[in-house]
Amino acid sequence: MKLFTKSRASAALKFPFQLIADQLREVEDQIKAEANAFDPAVEGYISYVLGTSGKRIRPALALLVGGACGVPNADHQKLGIVLELIHLATLVHDDIMDGAALRRSQPTAAAKWGNSLSVLLGDCLFAHALELAASFDSTHISRKIARSSNEVCTGEILQTQRRFDLSMTIPDYFRIISMKTAALFASAAELSAWLSGASSEVQENMRKYGDLLGTAYQIYDDCLDLTGNEEQAGKTLGTDLVKGKLTLPILYLLEESSEEQRSQLNTLILRQEPIDISIIAGIAGYAGAIRRSVATARGMLDEAREAVAILPENDHTTALNGITDYLDSLLENCKA
Amino acid sequence: MKLFTKSRASAALKFPFQLIADQLREVEDQIKAEANAFDPAVEGYISYVLGTSGKRIRPALALLVGGACGVPNADHQKLGIVLELIHLATLVHDDIMDGAALRRSQPTAAAKWGNSLSVLLGDCLFAHALELAASFDSTHISRKIARSSNEVCTGEILQTQRRFDLSMTIPDYFRIISMKTAALFASAAELSAWLSGASSEVQENMRKYGDLLGTAYQIYDDCLDLTGNEEQAGKTLGTDLVKGKLTLPILYLLEESSEEQRSQLNTLILRQEPIDISIIAGIAGYAGAIRRSVATARGMLDEAREAVAILPENDHTTALNGITDYLDSLLENCKA
Repeated sequence: MKLFTKSRASAALKFPFQLIADQLREVEDQIKAEANAFDPAVEGYISYVLGTSGKRIRPALALLVGGACGVPNADHQKLGIVLELIHLATLVHDDIMDGAALRRSQPTAAAKWGNSLSVLLGDCLFAHALELAASFDSTHISRKIARSSNEVCTGEILQTQRRFDLSMTIPDYFRIISMKTAALFASAAELSAWLSGASSEVQENMRKYGDLLGTAYQIYDDCLDLTGNEEQAGKTLGTDLVKGKLTLPILYLLEESSEEQRSQLNTLILRQEPIDISIIAGIAGYAGAIRRSVATARGMLDEAREAVAILPENDHTTALNGITDYLDSLLENCKA
Repeated sequence: MKLFTKSRASAALKFPFQLIADQLREVEDQIKAEANAFDPAVEGYISYVLGTSGKRIRPALALLVGGACGVPNADHQKLGIVLELIHLATLVHDDIMDGAALRRSQPTAAAKWGNSLSVLLGDCLFAHALELAASFDSTHISRKIARSSNEVCTGEILQTQRRFDLSMTIPDYFRIISMKTAALFASAAELSAWLSGASSEVQENMRKYGDLLGTAYQIYDDCLDLTGNEEQAGKTLGTDLVKGKLTLPILYLLEESSEEQRSQLNTLILRQEPIDISIIAGIAGYAGAIRRSVATARGMLDEAREAVAILPENDHTTALNGITDYLDSLLENCKA
């Protein structure tokens, strides 16, 4: 998942990470340095995986919530690193399952070294992340992080199971993306508040904020897969339907179609062959389904702002809302 | 790894688990019950994986060390369950890499549901095990268990890297099997002593005991792959060389061969094709290499007995030595 890197050039707002730029640089250095903790024979592979640098959104969330609730410290950084390592481990395994050759324009571990080694590399990275999680004084962090890792994998299993399954409902969809995409965002925000000694109400609101942000992002990504410009997005689009992933715009389209249209669409999906997006786009309800998906994501972003309202007003709180606003601006790009 | 289940009929001694039979039954029930902790959509798969019952040697080690150092309690059981779940997770991933169709005469998860789902199933199981590990009061257990999980995967990576690598040394071999096979045994024994409040010297001795037992077992398994009777072993043998795994008897054989024999053997191995064991067995030093491997394993078992000597004399301590004696008796079967 190339979070928030797409369409940045065209976005109206900037990613509001300036405030924590120094700390994010430290996090970046620390992530790279984590490779040293591995056996010399494995270090090179891990270095490669850790070097496929992303936006480090999970560490950024941890640092911003830490700053909003007090002063972000080394523990917030460590939390961010742990979550980023888990995220990277899941990407290594995702690329095996998707048979993906490239990620961020670089060959995936699976493409470079094969599936067997990549299964083990992901495992090593995951085990190391959990070891780092257990270096906090309390078992609270380890427990919660292991739980959300389980959620991410379970969400992926559910998604795999429901491929080409036309009985999949909209609540099923939300449950899956909340697990597979939003769980680590929610942990970043919630546990960062916990590290700052925030009240359980604040922790719960931060969990909600992370969950809503992650869920809205996934809806954006799912819409982009149908409506995006490949050059701008920097990746192949239209792949969800080919893989049988029934995303929100398609579920809305199925819901709103006439009996005959639905039957046509079902036939297209069940053929399990590449679908020409223009056929989908030609269905009467298509533009409406995209608009409805964008509206759903925006509704979640409003709820995310409400969840943040519990925090004291400060630069970091403003930046948390800035992420929400930024994602909101990206949703502009999703037009049928 | 079908630990200690092979050749049992022909073994002179019995597996000394009678002493903890009731607790092992509880552990078995608890392992099966762990499936309930998963999402209903995943539970069925996990149940299947948890049901491929083995000897539960890691829980048995935890319970016996707990009994030798005091009274085995629920924490020792939980430790055993955590380690068994991690072991089962690694088996799910191993079977993907090996393309194995059967394990303990049952279809593997990979064979039943494909590689993608099996990658995720292993991940879920591993995450759940680490969550359970984090339910101990102290982070000590989580930290150590995550570390040994990392060792298991790293050992597997090293082994994968060194396939068909004739520059692999005997110390390389020992390092690999100590990581991939013995690490979880060592953790079971060491952490069980820690849970009983044993001294750091006792903990260290128990770590050694587990490491030596696991390493000697792997040497036994590697010899059996060359010398065993398939019917008795209940699995296809002679597979290590086909996969390019240079095990101790082969490394000894290479070391002791004449220049010309070594060159022949190298050619055989590098051809990366199934090797007729009878060709290997026809090499002059073969019987000696097997004997030397068995002697090495027995030397380790002697050291394992020395490590156990630090424990108070009681039934559980006797049973720990009983495992050593049992493995010693199995080594009888390894004859060229």
